[in-house]
Amino acid sequence: MATTGADPQRIGRELDGAVVTVDPALPSAVREEVEEIIGRPVGAGAGPRVHVGPGLPRLAAGERLLWMHSTNAGVDALLRAHSPWPPEALLTRTVGRMGERIGQYVLAWALAELQAIPGFLRQQEARTWNRLPTELADGTLAVVFGTGSIGAGIGAALRRCGIRTVGVARTPRPAPGFDSVLALGDPTGPHGPSAELTAALGAARWVVDALPLTPGTADLFGPALFGAMAGATFFNVGRGATVRTEALAEALEQGRVAHAVLDVLPEEPAPPASPAWDLPRTTLTSHSAGPTTAADITADFRTAWQALRAGRLPALTVRTAAGY
Amino acid sequence: MATTGADPQRIGRELDGAVVTVDPALPSAVREEVEEIIGRPVGAGAGPRVHVGPGLPRLAAGERLLWMHSTNAGVDALLRAHSPWPPEALLTRTVGRMGERIGQYVLAWALAELQAIPGFLRQQEARTWNRLPTELADGTLAVVFGTGSIGAGIGAALRRCGIRTVGVARTPRPAPGFDSVLALGDPTGPHGPSAELTAALGAARWVVDALPLTPGTADLFGPALFGAMAGATFFNVGRGATVRTEALAEALEQGRVAHAVLDVLPEEPAPPASPAWDLPRTTLTSHSAGPTTAADITADFRTAWQALRAGRLPALTVRTAAGY
Repeated sequence: MATTGADPQRIGRELDGAVVTVDPALPSAVREEVEEIIGRPVGAGAGPRVHVGPGLPRLAAGERLLWMHSTNAGVDALLRAHSPWPPEALLTRTVGRMGERIGQYVLAWALAELQAIPGFLRQQEARTWNRLPTELADGTLAVVFGTGSIGAGIGAALRRCGIRTVGVARTPRPAPGFDSVLALGDPTGPHGPSAELTAALGAARWVVDALPLTPGTADLFGPALFGAMAGATFFNVGRGATVRTEALAEALEQGRVAHAVLDVLPEEPAPPASPAWDLPRTTLTSHSAGPTTAADITADFRTAWQALRAGRLPALTVRTAAGY
Repeated sequence: MATTGADPQRIGRELDGAVVTVDPALPSAVREEVEEIIGRPVGAGAGPRVHVGPGLPRLAAGERLLWMHSTNAGVDALLRAHSPWPPEALLTRTVGRMGERIGQYVLAWALAELQAIPGFLRQQEARTWNRLPTELADGTLAVVFGTGSIGAGIGAALRRCGIRTVGVARTPRPAPGFDSVLALGDPTGPHGPSAELTAALGAARWVVDALPLTPGTADLFGPALFGAMAGATFFNVGRGATVRTEALAEALEQGRVAHAVLDVLPEEPAPPASPAWDLPRTTLTSHSAGPTTAADITADFRTAWQALRAGRLPALTVRTAAGY
């Protein structure tokens, strides 16, 4: 967690003199709560800059960025826009209850499939009364790529309905929400996915992409990973660019992917001509799975502020070199 | 549980000589498993009758019914067709994993509403990319009428997603799956629902009817109970005739019921002209919430058979005078 150049003890000492700003497009509740946390009006002072918002405002000549608190969980676009990130500046992010929220999103869509909810909604429109087969979730297998706070929220939600959970991480170690964790390895490399990962994907009823976008995850879901699936339902709640849309289309046509539920796409919002609309047996959900509330933003800012005042690196610090 | 005239010790002694029959419309796996349990072919012998099936076949002149094992959980139609039920004959029913199944059904439809799944499915058809608001289930309140094995399955499933659960029972006592249990009282009587029940219904996001059909529950959900609701989503997974459809229609029009999901109706299957199809913001699910499998039927028959051989009344004995 400490692979950032920002020194928390130095930043903690500089907080008193810092100018704290809040993006003016955020709800006023965020500004009011931030002022309560810092004990002074936003914008006051003449020291280095602390900013709360989705993006980084242009700094005045000679102004120095001390700390930015991102109001989003994903910081790939921010880091692309400010590359290289100044190593002495701290970047934290808002996770809020996103793990719980995305966990309930995945559980809701999985149970909707098992309970034939789309089919019953169609029958309702047609005034048709036919029994449709339904299934218990218990004992089905989910493979979740990403075992951080969002992956853990997904694993916890699925496990509560008796679903078995396997996590996949770059560095596998036991993680909350998961029965076991496999190594990601180099599935797009010449040897393909490991035997263990191939077996898990072949047995999976649910495959969830909850990965951040980094150089290592771009285009990760292609023919190699989809080719190991055998009728899974595929969720993308991570980042759109981790999936090759044409490889997903082929997997859907072959039945290797039975259904897809995509909260994120390489291009958002999806234009009417996006190839994603033509994917069979797929639903797009408009980047709605993990909304961030004003309370989420200020709760995570408060926790980070308190950590820095105590000279500690906040838990939601972004390792800017790694990209998440 | 013991308010049946059937004597388990007498029935247990008579099992060896009984003629066991299985409804020929059931899957052959049921007959094979029953033969394995009883240790002889079905139909063999000349003693009193044991029957496994959805209904009771005509008995030969002088033939005596010892025990019927219903392949359904609901026995109201069976008891209506054979009224009065011979008091010395045992009636057991199949519950199987119905509590779990109906619990996941209710949870699936509740989460689908919170995650705006019907809205996203409509957007998908229209190729529209708009964010739709989603909500966490945590902290919402469910009031479940019926605290037996099906009510308990519903309570347990909802609680796992952080939903608060209040059960309603004729005789309130702590029950698994429920934070608390209220007395049903006489909500259609001159004094209406109790103050406690009125308050719970007014605060409820979810109201679930999981009641059997008995003289005491017919038409129970009418203006008095619906009038206490303030925007709840109403589920009927019990019996259709416990709800007055025109009262539900009025509650939907007034917004006292925000949505309805009805697995059961007074008339099934619903004909195209059924008034239920005209209910606004309602989905009918064709009596599919709690399917019974061959394994459910034979597992519950086996447990009942073993109880009787030990001289005990099976746990799934129907109190035929009460009707459930």
